Amino acid sequence: MEYEDFYRGRRVMITGGAGFIGSNLARRLVDLGANVLLVDSLIPEYGGNLFNIRGIADRVRLNVADVRQDSTMSYLVRHAEIIFNLAGQVSHIDSMRDPFTDLEINCRSQLSILEACRRNNPAAKVVFAGTRQVYGKPDCLPVTERHLVRPTDVNGINKVAGEYYHLVYDHVFGVRACSLRLTNIYGPRQLVKHDRQGFIGWFIRLAVEDREIQIYGDGSQLRDFVYVDDAADAFLRAGAADACNGEVFNVGGAEPVSHRDLVRLLIEVAGTGRVRFVPWPEEKRAIDIGSFYADSSKFKAATGWEPRVALRDGLARTVAYYRAHLPHYLNPEAQELLPP
Amino acid sequence: MEYEDFYRGRRVMITGGAGFIGSNLARRLVDLGANVLLVDSLIPEYGGNLFNIRGIADRVRLNVADVRQDSTMSYLVRHAEIIFNLAGQVSHIDSMRDPFTDLEINCRSQLSILEACRRNNPAAKVVFAGTRQVYGKPDCLPVTERHLVRPTDVNGINKVAGEYYHLVYDHVFGVRACSLRLTNIYGPRQLVKHDRQGFIGWFIRLAVEDREIQIYGDGSQLRDFVYVDDAADAFLRAGAADACNGEVFNVGGAEPVSHRDLVRLLIEVAGTGRVRFVPWPEEKRAIDIGSFYADSSKFKAATGWEPRVALRDGLARTVAYYRAHLPHYLNPEAQELLPP
Repeated sequence: MEYEDFYRGRRVMITGGAGFIGSNLARRLVDLGANVLLVDSLIPEYGGNLFNIRGIADRVRLNVADVRQDSTMSYLVRHAEIIFNLAGQVSHIDSMRDPFTDLEINCRSQLSILEACRRNNPAAKVVFAGTRQVYGKPDCLPVTERHLVRPTDVNGINKVAGEYYHLVYDHVFGVRACSLRLTNIYGPRQLVKHDRQGFIGWFIRLAVEDREIQIYGDGSQLRDFVYVDDAADAFLRAGAADACNGEVFNVGGAEPVSHRDLVRLLIEVAGTGRVRFVPWPEEKRAIDIGSFYADSSKFKAATGWEPRVALRDGLARTVAYYRAHLPHYLNPEAQELLPP
Repeated sequence: MEYEDFYRGRRVMITGGAGFIGSNLARRLVDLGANVLLVDSLIPEYGGNLFNIRGIADRVRLNVADVRQDSTMSYLVRHAEIIFNLAGQVSHIDSMRDPFTDLEINCRSQLSILEACRRNNPAAKVVFAGTRQVYGKPDCLPVTERHLVRPTDVNGINKVAGEYYHLVYDHVFGVRACSLRLTNIYGPRQLVKHDRQGFIGWFIRLAVEDREIQIYGDGSQLRDFVYVDDAADAFLRAGAADACNGEVFNVGGAEPVSHRDLVRLLIEVAGTGRVRFVPWPEEKRAIDIGSFYADSSKFKAATGWEPRVALRDGLARTVAYYRAHLPHYLNPEAQELLPP
């Protein structure tokens, strides 16, 4: 069976379903004929935004809930065959200011969801949104799953604990689960109202607004980037493939690109924005991890996944999206809080 | 300055201070002239036991408190120059039955203690009791700190999250901290009232009681063992050495010993007890990690530590201790709950 066919009529739950990756994944799923339940807290500072489900709102079920609310989650997991577990607090800076909130969302809530599956729905399959942040500053490149886990902030620690819970519940309790360690995902529907959730969405917003993009140092550090449709495809493949159970997988871009080249390409594609090179702020240099790019061959071998959208094309689509819809992403007040 | 001299007049706090390693460490510290505060919850099922501080009770300060009680910990950390952070829930089985209690003790409480230091006592040095359990089933032997972290149960995950918090608070907030990943520690004052906190204490109890010790399979799996005085010495060295800050270290035994040889030696030393080889219970075999022993050369190089007590000698001392004092360790009712 093709992995797309797997989802026809399938009951699927997405935590963080009104967020960036969750809503793009939901669009694919409704097109594949899945029965989709979106769970999202819609906390204004986070990534959930009902504008993200415009056009599919009548083909999904939305349940506003916070993954920290155990009894609610315990109820909601019961009817899902596949759970895409994407809800999270993704700001590193916030995790250092308020580590306990990050712990509740990224660590304890993951344990709650898995306990709920163990008790109420052990046949569920759970795909967790992990992160390349768990590796910290890499010892060698490209980074494989054999690289030491060495998170550099509280968010990274809680994310890795959340990931490990999934593996243990797979191994010990038979709740099938795996984790995708995502690198820099970009594309339509990403939070861009502040710069605390990754630099690429922020850079795209600045380009669209014809503003100055600052690069620290010479911008030679390398990163890899995955267009959100490719990320959604990775989740679909992982959810359908029992070969993934109990494993972690890097999901990274086709090739590394320097910050400098990324910004030049972005400005060229957008036709707006400009770049300025500025000295490293000391506090940023202290926590910079240098170059990072992932080796995704383990995931490719397990599922046949390949990133298909080239960076230039993905940036063009993203710029076009925000050019049309930027006001819906600029601040919590502009964010739609009732279904469109 | 010799590391022992470092502790004269030094204000030291030990969480889990009435427990196995904590109380043995406290004995060394009072002899070295330190000003010792023991913090222990004295929860009956856990390892704290006031009999453990008999003979030093008038030379330490005991504060009964649970590390989960944030405001209490926030107060207590203020006056410590060195914190030996040993409190924990150590049962793997319990962590799978009740993962949230384990999370509270081993994960969230560690974050609380470190936040308290960051806010109220950033000059403190914290030495965390980590565990070899974070490595899971080893890929190769002996296991160095370069081995992947791959915990096999909820307790292992929460312990590794607790450890990572220490490293991040060292790197980011300057709260000096390190972690000792202990292998199998044995010796006087270990909890032996049930078999859920490691097999060696339980085997020693069975030998002392002249009962049968069961070995699964042929007992060929290897382990390494550290006598508790050597473990206490490792903590003292780590606490005094700023070269350890921000790092994890294996603290393991001088040489690997099979379960079979361990039990034979124990029975020979004790002159009581007997061995029986039984087939692996299926549920135990499923979670067995096979042979494990650690490479401690990183810690030796950093601090000069060496295990000094040979296994035969350590077993003899431990057997003699429990032969004299076993009733004080047999059940919560026998445990002394008021200072002796």
